[in-house]
Amino acid sequence: MPEKVLVFSRFPKALMLRIGDRYELLDAAGKPPNEVFSAEQLSDIRAMITAGGTRLGADTMDLMPKLAAIVCYGTGYDGVDLAAVAKRGITLGHSPGANAASVADIAVTLMLAVTRRLLVADDYVRGGSWAGAKPSPMMRPQAGMLGRRIGVYGMGEIGRKIAARVAGFETEVGYFSRSRHDVPYQYFPTLEALGEWCSVLMIAVRAGSDTHHTVDANILNKLGKDGYVVNIARGSVINQQALVAALTDQTIAGAGLDVYAKEPQAPDALTALPNVVLSPHIGGHTLESHVAMQGCVMANLEAYFAGKPLPYGVKLG
Amino acid sequence: MPEKVLVFSRFPKALMLRIGDRYELLDAAGKPPNEVFSAEQLSDIRAMITAGGTRLGADTMDLMPKLAAIVCYGTGYDGVDLAAVAKRGITLGHSPGANAASVADIAVTLMLAVTRRLLVADDYVRGGSWAGAKPSPMMRPQAGMLGRRIGVYGMGEIGRKIAARVAGFETEVGYFSRSRHDVPYQYFPTLEALGEWCSVLMIAVRAGSDTHHTVDANILNKLGKDGYVVNIARGSVINQQALVAALTDQTIAGAGLDVYAKEPQAPDALTALPNVVLSPHIGGHTLESHVAMQGCVMANLEAYFAGKPLPYGVKLG
Repeated sequence: MPEKVLVFSRFPKALMLRIGDRYELLDAAGKPPNEVFSAEQLSDIRAMITAGGTRLGADTMDLMPKLAAIVCYGTGYDGVDLAAVAKRGITLGHSPGANAASVADIAVTLMLAVTRRLLVADDYVRGGSWAGAKPSPMMRPQAGMLGRRIGVYGMGEIGRKIAARVAGFETEVGYFSRSRHDVPYQYFPTLEALGEWCSVLMIAVRAGSDTHHTVDANILNKLGKDGYVVNIARGSVINQQALVAALTDQTIAGAGLDVYAKEPQAPDALTALPNVVLSPHIGGHTLESHVAMQGCVMANLEAYFAGKPLPYGVKLG
Repeated sequence: MPEKVLVFSRFPKALMLRIGDRYELLDAAGKPPNEVFSAEQLSDIRAMITAGGTRLGADTMDLMPKLAAIVCYGTGYDGVDLAAVAKRGITLGHSPGANAASVADIAVTLMLAVTRRLLVADDYVRGGSWAGAKPSPMMRPQAGMLGRRIGVYGMGEIGRKIAARVAGFETEVGYFSRSRHDVPYQYFPTLEALGEWCSVLMIAVRAGSDTHHTVDANILNKLGKDGYVVNIARGSVINQQALVAALTDQTIAGAGLDVYAKEPQAPDALTALPNVVLSPHIGGHTLESHVAMQGCVMANLEAYFAGKPLPYGVKLG
């Protein structure tokens, strides 16, 4: 008989097909598991799959007294209450690097689209303004990539891939990270110093209490009126209210965002702006990245049920 | 007294400020010069500035009997009647490479935006579909860049810069060009072979009678239903009617276009499609690229009026 696995977050069905072939999936589809399943059904659940950004607290864990493995689909695990995990001796897994190329690609896509005003440009063509030679202040030439200073915040697998990609555009690349890495980019000892130096800030840092709202009004101010911010990490890293204010009063030139403070919500103040490019948290949303993330989930579940250490485990503490 | 220079194409005023400081500009602003200026005014014009893609035939040259130098703003000179130029002994100049980085950037911008469906994604967020969890077939995961085969058609300065940029996205890069170049990418001896191999075709070839409509129904068909075409060169390289048909019946997955058959027109059949990203010929439209192109124009004019060979001349024949 296949082992039972609870699916906590709402995932498209197609993503779970491969996993469903191997395990009996109890799909809570984003609802509290006790609203979907009986206490008896939950009583023998030992493993669950969740999206790392989804809040998963002690209250949910307590619904499954035998819960011993939490497997995150994706790199992040910031929604998981780590203290509760540690207290219960639960094993935590994720998919490190499986979506790194795909997420780095969306970061560069957003950077290029917002700095070259691609949405405005497409609208200028489709709406007939180009054919009608209609003047458009938004279409004035902007600074391109050549010689631009790009700051990468975070130098994990995704940060590294972002840096490698943007360096190909004849830019200068700098970074801030808790520690210096063996990479060919200029290191800045503080986020403030990086913000002062760069004109595009690419956020690729892991979410957590130490990075919460680190990109605030002060940092945005340092980017300056020709500056841009791109966030593909987690909404919590930016003070979203400060960002909306900086974009509205043109303290900075624009933003490319794949993540938001409260997903799937993007506030009206943001969606009303012409100088932003917004995507619905699709960083890891490519075919090859899903296959790789599914591979990590399968490998983690298999190891857990075989009583072995997770191949893609999160080391706590 | 400053030398007189005719400005043939319609250029934004700001682009001509530096040049206007040095020369007396007669701005025809895209109209036939004899509709704007008298025969007497045109009689002593020896040099003119034009956009290389604008049709400039013997009829126009004949309006200026002393015309001896045609200076193109940008890399291309495909609109200029080269036989008429040769016959009159006119010197032809352009701005080679001055906009190459900027044009290569827009090529990659279009490639990323169309393959990751960025416009659809932005609309999904702004329109509230994401917040409303509205299903969208267009938002299904697509193949990303990792391991993709990118074909570059043309290996001049722009093609080279496109190849260098896309290689950074962990892709495989191949190219077709009249001759093999000393570059670290796989060479294909025909455009057909390249089309058969790649899933994204990046057009970066010089326009001319030898490249006219070379990307036709046959080549598009070879790209296949997961294939994309990106054109930042000239609209004439693609058979636009065949492209619209291939996009409409989904023979290919999408297209990113900065250039069109008849600019500034993008046909309704194209602007109605969701699987295209359209920009209004802004490849070279960045601050640094304009400065560099202006530099080439100034240097060419200065050399011409000093009786010296153009530093950025086009070698005919």
